[in-house]
Amino acid sequence: MSQTIDLSPLLAELDPDQVVIDPDRVQGYRWDRAEDPAAGTPAVVVRAGSTADVQVAMRFAAAHRMPVVPRGAGSGLSGGASAVEGCMVISTERMRELAIDPSTRTAVVGPGLMNAEVKAAASEHGLWYPPDPSSYEFCSIGGNIATNAGGLCCVKYGVTTDYVLGLTVVLADGSVVRLGGPRVKDVAGLPLTKLFVGSEGTLGIVTEIVLRLLPKQRRAATLVATFADLDAAIGTVLDITARMRPSMLELMDATTIGAVEDDLRMGLDREAAAMLVIQSDEPAGTAAEEIEQIGALCESRGASEVVSTDDPDEGAMFVTARRAALVSLEKQGRLLLEDVGVPLPRLGDLLAGIADIAAARDVTIAVVAHAGDGNTHPTLVLDPSDPAMAERAQQAYGEIIELTLSLGGTISGEHGIGRLKRPWLADQLGEDVMALNRKIKEALDPFGILNPGAGI
Amino acid sequence: MSQTIDLSPLLAELDPDQVVIDPDRVQGYRWDRAEDPAAGTPAVVVRAGSTADVQVAMRFAAAHRMPVVPRGAGSGLSGGASAVEGCMVISTERMRELAIDPSTRTAVVGPGLMNAEVKAAASEHGLWYPPDPSSYEFCSIGGNIATNAGGLCCVKYGVTTDYVLGLTVVLADGSVVRLGGPRVKDVAGLPLTKLFVGSEGTLGIVTEIVLRLLPKQRRAATLVATFADLDAAIGTVLDITARMRPSMLELMDATTIGAVEDDLRMGLDREAAAMLVIQSDEPAGTAAEEIEQIGALCESRGASEVVSTDDPDEGAMFVTARRAALVSLEKQGRLLLEDVGVPLPRLGDLLAGIADIAAARDVTIAVVAHAGDGNTHPTLVLDPSDPAMAERAQQAYGEIIELTLSLGGTISGEHGIGRLKRPWLADQLGEDVMALNRKIKEALDPFGILNPGAGI
Ligand SMILES: Cc1cc2nc3c(=O)[nH]c(=O)nc-3n(C[C@H](O)[C@H](O)[C@H](O)COP(=O)(O)OP(=O)(O)OC[C@H]3O[C@@H](n4cnc5c(N)ncnc54)[C@H](O)[C@@H]3O)c2cc1C
Ligand SMILES: Cc1cc2nc3c(=O)[nH]c(=O)nc-3n(C[C@H](O)[C@H](O)[C@H](O)COP(=O)(O)OP(=O)(O)OC[C@H]3O[C@@H](n4cnc5c(N)ncnc54)[C@H](O)[C@@H]3O)c2cc1C
Repeated sequence: MSQTIDLSPLLAELDPDQVVIDPDRVQGYRWDRAEDPAAGTPAVVVRAGSTADVQVAMRFAAAHRMPVVPRGAGSGLSGGASAVEGCMVISTERMRELAIDPSTRTAVVGPGLMNAEVKAAASEHGLWYPPDPSSYEFCSIGGNIATNAGGLCCVKYGVTTDYVLGLTVVLADGSVVRLGGPRVKDVAGLPLTKLFVGSEGTLGIVTEIVLRLLPKQRRAATLVATFADLDAAIGTVLDITARMRPSMLELMDATTIGAVEDDLRMGLDREAAAMLVIQSDEPAGTAAEEIEQIGALCESRGASEVVSTDDPDEGAMFVTARRAALVSLEKQGRLLLEDVGVPLPRLGDLLAGIADIAAARDVTIAVVAHAGDGNTHPTLVLDPSDPAMAERAQQAYGEIIELTLSLGGTISGEHGIGRLKRPWLADQLGEDVMALNRKIKEALDPFGILNPGAGI
Repeated sequence: MSQTIDLSPLLAELDPDQVVIDPDRVQGYRWDRAEDPAAGTPAVVVRAGSTADVQVAMRFAAAHRMPVVPRGAGSGLSGGASAVEGCMVISTERMRELAIDPSTRTAVVGPGLMNAEVKAAASEHGLWYPPDPSSYEFCSIGGNIATNAGGLCCVKYGVTTDYVLGLTVVLADGSVVRLGGPRVKDVAGLPLTKLFVGSEGTLGIVTEIVLRLLPKQRRAATLVATFADLDAAIGTVLDITARMRPSMLELMDATTIGAVEDDLRMGLDREAAAMLVIQSDEPAGTAAEEIEQIGALCESRGASEVVSTDDPDEGAMFVTARRAALVSLEKQGRLLLEDVGVPLPRLGDLLAGIADIAAARDVTIAVVAHAGDGNTHPTLVLDPSDPAMAERAQQAYGEIIELTLSLGGTISGEHGIGRLKRPWLADQLGEDVMALNRKIKEALDPFGILNPGAGI
């Protein structure tokens, strides 16, 4: 396709440095963090600077029925931003507007800003943008919108969609719509803002975002508990969620603990089967009480060690261990990352089943989990030089998905379907819901040029 | 239309007492609380008992291109459930299943349950379903989903959509889809659950709902402040929202205070220009501090009286005054209710403009507001025996909407567009967004039989 489309009209309409066709530079836009070996090579990368630029690019693509892959920071883990052969990648990296309005507690931001930059800007006004994917320093807010990103605090504060008040979106034909706005409540017309959050670039390209902010989060108190027995740790998670709302409730298994300890030498307990990292951001007195109650719950389930602190720096250190998990695991091999979720009471069955799969397929599967949400990241750790292992891992990956579905779960809690999980989507949704997805897709993108092969 | 369609196949497929054609009984399904004089008469009312019943009814309607008006408890204020001449009303009043699962903190409920019944059932398990429209005792949970209902606690706890994890929906062709489920995080496929919340019965009929519950709310501390000056009260609202998150932040103006006092004789201050009712449900110590800070803010803006209490019963009495507002106003005349919202800093402009409109049109406009959200209910109080006043009120109603739009606001914060506000919807959304609404409507309901004339 790249051969047959004359790009000169596009080059004429956009700034030259916005249009990348140099083969070496184009390589940098082929993959996201899923590193899909099947990724194609884009014919052109448009580094748009504005909504109008995105419109120009989309109109050109529409006229030529050229597939378009929207791209934020490329930190995605499901191949949603990996290139399609001969496509146009529209990168938002240069769309970095930022305005905070403390009086409405809202922010208007460009999609190319990093999540961390939005958080930092809010914090200068004593405000807080809660969603906190572990990748917050290197994922874009546009990508967060497109995937409806989660994170560590969503067990109490919800996911990205809960903070999106308005969107500017360029549609498949190059037209632009402005949805919602800086109003906390607005029910005029269909809830279209919500439809685009989590649509993985399949319905339109998000070029501006109105976010809802909260007053600054209180200093959290932190508890870390280790367990010799994985089931005891999971039992504790259920004990906690049944009666309180911690602001963080994360789990790491033995393999993950080992990998982080290898990497960071923090003195974590390598003998533990599981570690919970829990925070309460209630007012100080109440937080202390909650942490004490949680400590008691851990102990009554036989925790081997329970440490707690209301010192934010010390607390942050424990959270660092959790946030480092994936990066530390990456140092042990090539990762194949899962993102399955189950109703909480099935968490034990899920983790037990994963252990069985790991044993049967002879592959290491480390588990980190946003345990309080039932959202887990079983992470297959591969020896890149062992192709047979890669094959076994691929089988295990599919088996974890099938196990999840048999437990009434979802094949993606927060990373999205992208290209990697598409083969299993119909197994979860069923044919009727798939048909409904397609109806909406076809209504908005009749030529199927927006992120084809991804999401739905 | 009722003359030409033979209903006997429908009567054959459904239980006889589910199908109402008796003209007297049918009358009871013509209006919602907007009492639209243009409401038609249904040809038939189906009081469905199950999803399967709704499917039978929808298939029949689809085959005959018969308009269908979904109906919950008929408490709507925008004419969304008022009948279309010759239509089929599908009433959910008998769909009252209810199951609470404390371990996942979720509820599976039939659409016909009252909001208050869901709250009560949750509370038996120490759990809480937050959304609390003032009408909670006589509005259905299905209607709440269809309108994305708000209420008093949404200033802190969000609106209905934030608590919906899954839906069963019967589509325009009579097929059924199950969307989402009891999983806190789930990003598989397009966010279709969210698309149906707030769609006002235009895309499908909700027959089962999976709700997310929270642990029981803490006892709230309450503050009531009266102001001789409306602007001072509004300034206080902005002072509060800029830095804290009360669990309630309501405003009543002088007319409303007078109406409630006439009705309930609670000793409210009839001289006040405005009264704020504010709650904090933080842990006791923190709530007391917050209430104290809020009291100080009220005083620094010149409040004439500030009363606070941490006694829940006394607090509930003040809230009763606020909740009673519409019912008390109804005793003063026929009401025409607005539901406009603006970005918070424009609240003062909105209320000043409304006062001007009231004076110019010589009609009483009482204002109650979910002030913390910028969502207001200017309420026109009409003398039913004065047709000239009704006409002036109708003009004022339109002028309030135009004023709201000029302030960057929304024509509906929580009641929905229904049939009453449809003439203004395009003025808010613009033609492009209207076209996008229609594309989705047409994709899902190509014959336009679902709630025609309402919503979008
Ligand atoms: C170490 C690590 C930890 C992670 N932890 C988490 C976590 O805790 N929670 C979590 O949710 N995710 C996590 N992720 C995954 C990833 O960071 C998120 O999915 C993130 O939201 C992707 O943002 P991005 O800017 O990198 O998007 P990209 O990878 O560039 O794109 C992601 C998807 O969004 C689409 N897209 C991007 N921008 C736009 C736009 N402006 N308009 C329309 N579509 C667009 C793309 O087409 C693609 O489908 C993690 C990733 C890594 C590598
Ligand atoms: C005194 C008073 C106070 C109020 N206070 C508030 C408030 O604080 N906040 C607020 O948000 N609202 C408030 N309302 C408005 C009203 O109660 C809400 O809109 C409520 O959600 C409507 O529920 P219902 O069951 O009565 O729905 P109905 O009036 O029967 O229907 C409302 C709309 O939903 C559709 N619908 C109903 N059930 C279904 C279903 N199962 N599937 C698909 N579509 C369906 C109907 O077609 C219609 O379009 C108030 C009303 C009154 C009279």
